[in-house]
Amino acid sequence: MNFLNEVAQHYPDAISFAAGRPYEEFLDLPSVHRQIDLFAAHLRERFDGDERRVRGTLLQYGRTKGIIHELVARNLEVDEGIVVDPEAVVVTVGCQEALYLTLRALRRDDRDVLLAVLPTYVGAAGAAHLADMRVLPVAQSAAGIDVDDLVAVARRAREQGLRPRACYVVPDFGNPSGISFDLATRERLLAAAHDNGLLLLEDNPYGLFGAEPTGRSAPLPTLKALDTTRGVVYLGSFAKTGNPGTRVGYVVADQRVETGPDGRTELLADRLGELKSMLTVNTSPIAQAVIGGKLLENGGSLRTANERECAVYRRNLRMVLDGLARRFPAGRRPHVTWNRPTGGFFLVCALPFAAGDDLLEECAREHRVLWTPMHHFYAGGGARREIRLSVSHLEPEEIETGLDRLARFVTAHDA
Amino acid sequence: MNFLNEVAQHYPDAISFAAGRPYEEFLDLPSVHRQIDLFAAHLRERFDGDERRVRGTLLQYGRTKGIIHELVARNLEVDEGIVVDPEAVVVTVGCQEALYLTLRALRRDDRDVLLAVLPTYVGAAGAAHLADMRVLPVAQSAAGIDVDDLVAVARRAREQGLRPRACYVVPDFGNPSGISFDLATRERLLAAAHDNGLLLLEDNPYGLFGAEPTGRSAPLPTLKALDTTRGVVYLGSFAKTGNPGTRVGYVVADQRVETGPDGRTELLADRLGELKSMLTVNTSPIAQAVIGGKLLENGGSLRTANERECAVYRRNLRMVLDGLARRFPAGRRPHVTWNRPTGGFFLVCALPFAAGDDLLEECAREHRVLWTPMHHFYAGGGARREIRLSVSHLEPEEIETGLDRLARFVTAHDA
Repeated sequence: MNFLNEVAQHYPDAISFAAGRPYEEFLDLPSVHRQIDLFAAHLRERFDGDERRVRGTLLQYGRTKGIIHELVARNLEVDEGIVVDPEAVVVTVGCQEALYLTLRALRRDDRDVLLAVLPTYVGAAGAAHLADMRVLPVAQSAAGIDVDDLVAVARRAREQGLRPRACYVVPDFGNPSGISFDLATRERLLAAAHDNGLLLLEDNPYGLFGAEPTGRSAPLPTLKALDTTRGVVYLGSFAKTGNPGTRVGYVVADQRVETGPDGRTELLADRLGELKSMLTVNTSPIAQAVIGGKLLENGGSLRTANERECAVYRRNLRMVLDGLARRFPAGRRPHVTWNRPTGGFFLVCALPFAAGDDLLEECAREHRVLWTPMHHFYAGGGARREIRLSVSHLEPEEIETGLDRLARFVTAHDA
Repeated sequence: MNFLNEVAQHYPDAISFAAGRPYEEFLDLPSVHRQIDLFAAHLRERFDGDERRVRGTLLQYGRTKGIIHELVARNLEVDEGIVVDPEAVVVTVGCQEALYLTLRALRRDDRDVLLAVLPTYVGAAGAAHLADMRVLPVAQSAAGIDVDDLVAVARRAREQGLRPRACYVVPDFGNPSGISFDLATRERLLAAAHDNGLLLLEDNPYGLFGAEPTGRSAPLPTLKALDTTRGVVYLGSFAKTGNPGTRVGYVVADQRVETGPDGRTELLADRLGELKSMLTVNTSPIAQAVIGGKLLENGGSLRTANERECAVYRRNLRMVLDGLARRFPAGRRPHVTWNRPTGGFFLVCALPFAAGDDLLEECAREHRVLWTPMHHFYAGGGARREIRLSVSHLEPEEIETGLDRLARFVTAHDA
């Protein structure tokens, strides 16, 4: 994504539908101080006022798997109905480290491969690249993932002598697609993965940012909440729901894995901890304290903590969807279509022409608006007609101006 | 090192010469708050009071290579006389991530190998393992590294079709050996590495903790300070000199490396940044702010910031060396010998019997004192007579009691 960052830096006055950054107006430094102190007070109570132990926990080398694992487990129960042993939680340097550690643990040699829905989040492709793990694409469907194709890809891989180990999915408001898997797809996916010996790596950074959690649009259960066979490794991020400045994420890995040829097993989380001790040793306890404090002051619920942010994301998504409809009426040129996610940060527009890096650069220069060419989410291949729009961090006036600019760009190119 | 951690947890009342933790009595949470605010004030001044930009820098996704790179470069100039372009600095999640990124960048396939002095810091061996990079041992000498052996190992590797890419060294108060390379060895090593096309990976977590920096015992220049050919990648840690709770380290990588088959080059630091974007995205800016603030309040000098810690480490090292001499007089049983580092955290004792994990466990149980069996710093192989003693985090009475216990253990086993 270096090219995209360079374009953004080169045109700082451009309105960006490219950056998937969380909304930041509600973040502030006094909250960070307060949250650290709140977590310190929590430790103090827990350690019966032993100040040396509080200090040692916050300011010394520490537990590889983290110091907020119990609060993370409580959060999963409160917000997602997921019940896990805190020992199965590994607190990581963002979800990205969790992804890398998981893939590195699954990869034994070149025959171990990862499956992933195409288009794929660039961070997942990047982690697989670092872990030297080949990624086999699985077809996307309107319901998120084509489960029949998943089964076919796994079968073909096995026939070729490969070992399909896991499938990476973002079932809620996926990046880049914005698609959410429906309940039937979730259930079929769990069954198909189980039958084919595949772990599911469920990445859920956006699940909280859905429609109002009431009535018929109540959020769907995560794969991990539906998982009865320990078939799901759950990847969590606090970058969107906690504070991006902490770089704290986690992985829930409650599977038993073999430790060696003698048939002994250990918790996958412990295996990830061993790998983490060689990669980053432990996640900054000061950074963890910020997230710990935020969880404490919200009764363990990030749904509660993010009520204002959720309202912003819903408003922005509605504005962009309505704004596209006004600017690109059906049946008239330029012919632009788009999907209609019910939450999250992203949607995908199809333009009447291929929109690659060169057109992004031109659009930034001539029209001062940024978006992400979708070809970045495909392994290789040239420019595509689709672009990803991110709605997360914009103000209403930026959205309107940005869509005006986008419309001018598309119209100019549709000539 | 999981076994060692387990033993330590199992005998919490044991005195530990095992843990290489920095002294923590001078760390406190109010300083963390103050340092974050100091760095925020520094940003505020720099951004002409633009609060949104200050907040965005501290609490949002940010620059992959870090936000305190200029302060790190200034620190290197102030404390070490190393002059580097801040763009060549990558701020990492501890020195461990810096090590992994560097090895991952150097490793293209199985033929790329790392050289390292044996015994080797376990973190270096771990990073090489994660990066799937084979480590070829180089002999240690009284002056730290046997440069002739380095040349011979590199030559033999090439003859076998391997590509020796780099040699990992800790020239100042090495872990586990405590040895410092003398000046002549540093110069010979630089020349030999250059002649043999090897990068030197200089890891320097303990360089500040030497004898009083006056007169004849002035600290020796680092390899990077002596480097005139960009042959040294410098790995830095703030875990010992800044705050272990931040997990902030860095790497200086001012070499040009090829980006692909077309002959174009880029700064190695930029290549490491690309890999980091797939591993941890960026280092927590909140954690970086703590280190940034500490650098600011000490005029960029960690030597100044650590005057009290240095005095503790010097006192502890002297106490352990004197205490060993009193308890194990030369020519009398039990025959115990040890080296005499002039700084750092570690020294190595040779016992009259092999001291492996089983004896450590017994020693912890029967005598309530911990040390590190040296065989952990060798690739495989059984128990050895050497043990590593760490002096860094103990109080005087713990040292005396701990050495009494150690003497009883050794005497009991020498029967």
